[in-house]
Amino acid sequence: MPKNSNSIDEQAARHIIAKRKNIPDAQTLISKICEGNTTALSQSITLAESTAARHQLVAQEILTGCLPYANKSLRIGITGVPGVGKSTFIEALGKYLISLNKKIAVLAIDPSSSISHGSILGDKTRMNDLSTNSQAFIRPSAAGDSLGGVARKTKEAIILCEAAGYEIILIETVGVGQSETAVHAMTDFFLLLKLAGAGDELQGIKRGIMEMADLLVINKADGENKTAAQFAASAFTKALHLYPVKESEWSPVVKRCSAINNEGISEIWKSISAYCALVNSNGYFENNRKKQNAYWLKTTIENTLKDTFYSNPQIKEALPQLLAELNEGTTTPFQAAQELLKKHNSKN
Amino acid sequence: MPKNSNSIDEQAARHIIAKRKNIPDAQTLISKICEGNTTALSQSITLAESTAARHQLVAQEILTGCLPYANKSLRIGITGVPGVGKSTFIEALGKYLISLNKKIAVLAIDPSSSISHGSILGDKTRMNDLSTNSQAFIRPSAAGDSLGGVARKTKEAIILCEAAGYEIILIETVGVGQSETAVHAMTDFFLLLKLAGAGDELQGIKRGIMEMADLLVINKADGENKTAAQFAASAFTKALHLYPVKESEWSPVVKRCSAINNEGISEIWKSISAYCALVNSNGYFENNRKKQNAYWLKTTIENTLKDTFYSNPQIKEALPQLLAELNEGTTTPFQAAQELLKKHNSKN
Repeated sequence: MPKNSNSIDEQAARHIIAKRKNIPDAQTLISKICEGNTTALSQSITLAESTAARHQLVAQEILTGCLPYANKSLRIGITGVPGVGKSTFIEALGKYLISLNKKIAVLAIDPSSSISHGSILGDKTRMNDLSTNSQAFIRPSAAGDSLGGVARKTKEAIILCEAAGYEIILIETVGVGQSETAVHAMTDFFLLLKLAGAGDELQGIKRGIMEMADLLVINKADGENKTAAQFAASAFTKALHLYPVKESEWSPVVKRCSAINNEGISEIWKSISAYCALVNSNGYFENNRKKQNAYWLKTTIENTLKDTFYSNPQIKEALPQLLAELNEGTTTPFQAAQELLKKHNSKN
Repeated sequence: MPKNSNSIDEQAARHIIAKRKNIPDAQTLISKICEGNTTALSQSITLAESTAARHQLVAQEILTGCLPYANKSLRIGITGVPGVGKSTFIEALGKYLISLNKKIAVLAIDPSSSISHGSILGDKTRMNDLSTNSQAFIRPSAAGDSLGGVARKTKEAIILCEAAGYEIILIETVGVGQSETAVHAMTDFFLLLKLAGAGDELQGIKRGIMEMADLLVINKADGENKTAAQFAASAFTKALHLYPVKESEWSPVVKRCSAINNEGISEIWKSISAYCALVNSNGYFENNRKKQNAYWLKTTIENTLKDTFYSNPQIKEALPQLLAELNEGTTTPFQAAQELLKKHNSKN
C-alpha cells in the first residue's frame, strides 16, 4: 500500500524537530555529568558517537567542559580471545572493586561491531550484577566503520566517564585485528586473559600482544583445569622473560584465577596496585599518558590526511587509470604518486 | 692555516661546472643502458639517488625510457642477522648463477647506511669473485635518512638493472628495523638466512620475518655444525607448518648450505626454480607484482602527505603549543588534530 509522500515528509520533519528538542544544551550536560548523573553521561556519549555535525558541535563543547575534571582514573585494558571469559572476568573484577568502594566504568572497543552488531558487551545481561549496580556504568561498544573512529569515540567516552567520577575504567576488546594496539594506546595497564593449553601462544607472540601485557591472567583455573593452569602459568612466566625490560620498569607477572568462582581476583588487584605504585613513583604513569596523547594526535592527523586524499573526487577519478598504467609498466609507483599528489594539491 | 675564501669559491664553482658537464643526456644514457653499458647504468643510478632537482629530472626521464625494457627479471630478497654470512652466500649463489649463464645484479637496502656509512655491501672486496666478473653488477646500498627514500632509490635501481639485461636481481638487507618488509614488498622471492642454534627464532617470529620467507637457508652447515644444522632444519620445518598457507600456494622449505664451501647452492636454486614454475603457472607472480606496485604507490603518497604536513612552517610553529595544551589536559588529541589540519588546509 503506497503511502502519501506528503505525510511521510511531515512525519520525518516532526521526527527531526523532536530529536532536535531532545538535545540538552552543553552546559547543562557538563554540570550534570560532574554531579555523576548517568543519564547525562549516556546522552553525552551518544552525542560524541554521532556523526551529525550539530551533535559533534555540542559533544566537543561538552568534552572541553569536562576535560578539567577528567584524566583522574586508572584505565585498564582487558583483552583475550573469544571464549576466554572476558565478561565473567570483568564482572568478577568489577564487583571486587565495588566492594573496595570504587566507582567503575566498563567500555569496549570492537571495530567489527558495525557488522556483528556488537559481539562484545552487546548483551549487558552477561554482566548481570554489574549492570544493576549503581557504582558501575556499562556502555556497549561504539559502532563504526574504522578502528580510528571507534577508538576516538572510546577515548571521548573515557573522558566523560572520568568527569562523572568513575575511578577505574575497564576497556574491553576482543582479540582480533589491531584493536588491542588501540586499547593499549589508551590505557595505563594492559591485562591479557588466557586459557591453559589453548595453543594460541604463537599468535600472541606474532601479533605482539604478549609484549604489551603487564599482567597475564590464566582464567578458568578451576576443577580439572587446575594442574594445566599451573603448568601454563610457569610456561608463560618463562616466555615473558624472553622480552626486553619494559620502559615502565615493570616486570609483567602471570596470575591464575577462576572468575566464575570469584577466586584469585584480589591477587590480581594486588598486582595492578603494585604496578600503579611503581609507575607513579618513577614518573612513567604521567609520561606514558603524554606519549599516548601525542600518539593519538599523530594518528588522527595521518588518518585524516589519508581519508581527505582518497575521498578527493579528482583522485577517485584518476587513481584507476594510473593503477592500470602501473600494471602495464608505463609508469613507476613514484611517478604515479607524484602525479596524484599534484592533482590533490591543485584542488586544495 | 686559513685559506683564501675567494679561491675556495672558485674551486667550488669549477667543481659544480665540471659536475654539470658530466651529466650525459637522458636519451644517450637510455640507449647505453639497453646495450648493457655498466658505466651508463652506474651514472643513471647515481642520478636517481641524487636529491638535486636537475638530477631528478634527468633520472625520471631515464626511468620512463627504461620501463618498456624492465620488469623482466627475477627479484630475490635476501636477509639475515649480521654474522649469518650474507656476503659469502650471495657470492656463492651469484657465481653459481653465472655458471648457468645468467647475468646478475646485487643491490642492497640499508636505511642505516647514512649513519654507519654502509654496513652491508659497503666493502665490495667481500665479494671478490663477483665484483670482478663481467656477468655481475654490484651496487652498494643507497644512502638516505628514511627507509621510504632508500626503498624508492632501490626500486629505481632495479628497473635500470633490468633494462640493462640483468636477469636475476639479488637484493640484500640486514635484519634490522622495517627494511625486511620493504625488501619483501619489492621482490618475487624472499630468502631468509639462519644459523643453527643462534637463538633468534623468537625475534624472527615476533617481527614477522619467518612468515615472509619462501626459503629458509641454514648457512654454515659444515664441519662441527653439521648435526646442529640438521636439528635446526627439522625444527624450522615444523615451525613453518604453524603458519597459514601462503597466497602464492607455495609451501616454504628449509635448506642447509655451506656458502664458503659452495655446498648446497644448487639445491637452493632448485627450490627457487620450483617456486618460479608454480607462481608463473598459477598467476601469482604477475598478481603479486601488481599488488606491490599498488603498495608502493600508496606508501609514497602517504609518506609524502605526512612529510608535507609536518614540514609546513605553520604546523611546525603550532605543534609544540598544542602538545603542551594536550599535556596540560586543556584539549583532546582529536580537537588538537582538527586545529592543526585547519591551519594546514588554509595554507595549501
